[in-house]
Amino acid sequence: MSNYPAPLARLIQELCKLPGIGEKTAARLAFHMLKGKKEDVLELAESISRMRHEVGLCRICFGLSEIDPQTGANGECAICRDSRREVEKICVVEEPADMIAVERSGEFKGLYHVLHGAISPLDGIGPDSLRIKEIIGRVENGAVREIIVATNPNVQGEATALYLAKVLKPTGVKITRIARGIPMGGDLEYTDPVTVGKAFEGRREI
Amino acid sequence: MSNYPAPLARLIQELCKLPGIGEKTAARLAFHMLKGKKEDVLELAESISRMRHEVGLCRICFGLSEIDPQTGANGECAICRDSRREVEKICVVEEPADMIAVERSGEFKGLYHVLHGAISPLDGIGPDSLRIKEIIGRVENGAVREIIVATNPNVQGEATALYLAKVLKPTGVKITRIARGIPMGGDLEYTDPVTVGKAFEGRREI
Repeated sequence: MSNYPAPLARLIQELCKLPGIGEKTAARLAFHMLKGKKEDVLELAESISRMRHEVGLCRICFGLSEIDPQTGANGECAICRDSRREVEKICVVEEPADMIAVERSGEFKGLYHVLHGAISPLDGIGPDSLRIKEIIGRVENGAVREIIVATNPNVQGEATALYLAKVLKPTGVKITRIARGIPMGGDLEYTDPVTVGKAFEGRREI
Repeated sequence: MSNYPAPLARLIQELCKLPGIGEKTAARLAFHMLKGKKEDVLELAESISRMRHEVGLCRICFGLSEIDPQTGANGECAICRDSRREVEKICVVEEPADMIAVERSGEFKGLYHVLHGAISPLDGIGPDSLRIKEIIGRVENGAVREIIVATNPNVQGEATALYLAKVLKPTGVKITRIARGIPMGGDLEYTDPVTVGKAFEGRREI
């Protein structure tokens, strides 16, 4: 790295911190930014810092929302503001990206709640580190009839789903879990036994 | 993309313009920047724009150098300034990254000259688009005894090497070309026939 001019070396070092980017890729990206049009490169730098300043969390569902540039306060996201959404259904996900994945399917027309993680005692993440109090509050005060738990089908996600079911039971709301099974376009032969088991367990009459 | 808040969508779009980064990787990087520490992310943005403002070309060899922050003028790079380098040898390369690769080998102690490309008529790049006039000037006015042509061993690089040999011949300088052959750690069996041919052509007594 000592052969690069200092600002270039520093950029390569910063790029290396990104996931999946090693030193060679970082150098390739940095040289691309060095040769590319100056406006394009400054535009990229600008959009990184704008994104960090302007994207915040929705004060209702904790999904992504734009921060009000005047007040600097977190507003409501486009989905929470949308009066056409079915307010009696809330889909609970782990991360904002999961919410976008569900939206992309077009299958769900209700509201969301983002936990920002899953229960994982080994990583020191308990229920108190997640937005679980807030979902209980929304169920108690709102018109919610069904909570669809769409946490990931792994150990942490399943534990979180069970915990949610336990704490939400007293409110009397209906709690459902998304189906685990063979992915579309998948192949039984190459699917792991646990998934095949879940697919049988979750079978439905046709 | 319509499901992302606008500043996030814009960042993903900008990241997609980088080489080897598709929409999925761009989204992954953007979410990483969203979750990461704010200072780290703003530091990355800052180092991108600083790099573009502070890295310029050396006015002698056209390699990378830091721009003088006071005058804004291109200075001389660390290698051209270094009095311990052998001023009678100049290694000609296509790109600044090639210069760094040669430096890394530790094999060369002379000066450099970066052409910023190679002759490629199909892409409309002729000798006038490259820093060829400048290398002729350096040979005519300097103490140069040997020009080592280290352009890439492909059609454009070879054409550039031949052109350089032709235009530099009248100055009486010695012109050499780096060896083409089997890379260290390589395997004859899997080496293309042209490279094997070059390795035989370039054989030396041991």
